[in-house]
Amino acid sequence: MDELMWLTVGAAAVFIIEASVYLYWILWGNGSVISYINDGQRPNQNFRVIQTFHTSTQKIALVEVGEEVWVYSNGEIMFGTKEDENEYAEVIVHVPMAAAKEVRRILIIGGGGGISVREALRYEEVDEIIAVDIDAEMMDLGKSFDRLVAFNEGALNHHKVRTMIQDGRSFVEQSLEAWDVIIVDIPEPTEKCPSLSRLFSLEFYHELKEHLNPGGVLSIACSTVNLMPEYMWSIEKTLKECGLFTIPFHNFSNKTGVDWGYILASTLPLQRDDIQLKVTTPFLTEGRLKDVLELPYYLNNRENKGMVQTDQNTVLLDIVKKELNDL
Amino acid sequence: MDELMWLTVGAAAVFIIEASVYLYWILWGNGSVISYINDGQRPNQNFRVIQTFHTSTQKIALVEVGEEVWVYSNGEIMFGTKEDENEYAEVIVHVPMAAAKEVRRILIIGGGGGISVREALRYEEVDEIIAVDIDAEMMDLGKSFDRLVAFNEGALNHHKVRTMIQDGRSFVEQSLEAWDVIIVDIPEPTEKCPSLSRLFSLEFYHELKEHLNPGGVLSIACSTVNLMPEYMWSIEKTLKECGLFTIPFHNFSNKTGVDWGYILASTLPLQRDDIQLKVTTPFLTEGRLKDVLELPYYLNNRENKGMVQTDQNTVLLDIVKKELNDL
Repeated sequence: MDELMWLTVGAAAVFIIEASVYLYWILWGNGSVISYINDGQRPNQNFRVIQTFHTSTQKIALVEVGEEVWVYSNGEIMFGTKEDENEYAEVIVHVPMAAAKEVRRILIIGGGGGISVREALRYEEVDEIIAVDIDAEMMDLGKSFDRLVAFNEGALNHHKVRTMIQDGRSFVEQSLEAWDVIIVDIPEPTEKCPSLSRLFSLEFYHELKEHLNPGGVLSIACSTVNLMPEYMWSIEKTLKECGLFTIPFHNFSNKTGVDWGYILASTLPLQRDDIQLKVTTPFLTEGRLKDVLELPYYLNNRENKGMVQTDQNTVLLDIVKKELNDL
Repeated sequence: MDELMWLTVGAAAVFIIEASVYLYWILWGNGSVISYINDGQRPNQNFRVIQTFHTSTQKIALVEVGEEVWVYSNGEIMFGTKEDENEYAEVIVHVPMAAAKEVRRILIIGGGGGISVREALRYEEVDEIIAVDIDAEMMDLGKSFDRLVAFNEGALNHHKVRTMIQDGRSFVEQSLEAWDVIIVDIPEPTEKCPSLSRLFSLEFYHELKEHLNPGGVLSIACSTVNLMPEYMWSIEKTLKECGLFTIPFHNFSNKTGVDWGYILASTLPLQRDDIQLKVTTPFLTEGRLKDVLELPYYLNNRENKGMVQTDQNTVLLDIVKKELNDL
């Protein structure tokens, strides 16, 4: 029986060593971020997890990838100190700034990273920017995490910027103010966070419309339109249902292969030709603005497509769920 | 000492079992395709390896992914029975067919899969299509592998089609024939196969020019231009150096995020407006043709860019190597 015992001890020892290595990997190594980084969202290069933590609505991971820092929210890359982030922010900010009659008072909903705030600060005429984020931890990162502050050029600490930790919809509903440009840059509703639909609904857009100055515009982020154009079409339909005039625009980021969609909306009719950049930007030159304002066929072929998102239905959530199933 | 022996036996047993499982995985499981499928080129879904084999120039893997079959060459997806393959073939074939004065005699270099041949067969006026591929095994697959034959609609066995197993350049150099449309659809030169540069060189383009009927056109595949526009610019410069008139075109596949580039070249000046589709196709409608013929800024911003590929230099290989390093 001794032989069997020692044989078992030997086998067990190997298992225990292997299990320990695995546990170390899960708890402190790259494996530890499995629950913070979804499959297919991992960097291709080597990466190092700087920090992971829970906020009231999100699981956040800060990940160092080469020279960059990527911020993951609930497993998806939310943003990073990356070149394509600059492109994204330039497009979502400078297009409405170019279309608005005035650019004195700016509201940015979902501005926790501070990158779009940085872009809005490029206009001397800007008097005040309000950046609203539901997530205190996210806003703190944008204000205090050195590598993010270097990237957003300290935008969230600028004297023209007022930061608010509040649900964007409640903030607008309770506010008596009006703005020249309102930027809504929040992620798509998912099963993890279906309530985000409330920031895309007809009821909310009616509210936003009431808070626009005459000649003011909205700029709404519409996710990755190359994969789900219906998402953008539905947001546009909802804005139109609300009596707003719209111009969809987009930015194909050739290095990532992602085409980001946005919609410009206003109480007054908008003409593409009237959109002239008011500041010089590194990425969004006149040449690129032409591409941004011109929809490719797959995105433009939208007659009678899209459905109206209300507080009562799940139009956008259904589109997102369908797309996630198709992937 | 007995204890130590049995302990060792136990430990060894675990190692041997694990090693056997690993070896099984490497030799017969999905792991067996490691050398046939590069990192980052694996299907996201479950897949099953149907077959792997070596040809004179390539390591081929046939992989079943859902309903589709993907063909890997030297680790990279070469093509598959996929929707985006149809898009690709429609664009590389129907644009030159629309631009050419006649479409009677067609030469396709790299036509082993038979998909572009299938598209060229849609024209009644076509008298003969020559499909040249250096790889006998590849051509055999396209002629006999049932799932590929179903996809290419038996194009390579069609009575109007003549297949040649030969290096495309040698074939053209030795030929006394001339064509209305010549399609060069071969992969980019890499360190594994640098000699592919000979099918993109000034010397080869001079040869092709001699084999064009009056009013005939060339259609040249230019790889993924969203990642390396310089590749297309250099091919265009080489064609121009050869005295040809050029129109670059492209197709952004919104589901894959890849923008494929192509160049149309002719001995006569070409106008984009003269390019009118002669057949009806499922993907390439008039609406999409507009996108195909219009270059986005990142691709169009090409003044004084690109270098001439000759038989003596490594212009395209250097661009590909640089891009692979950047990834």
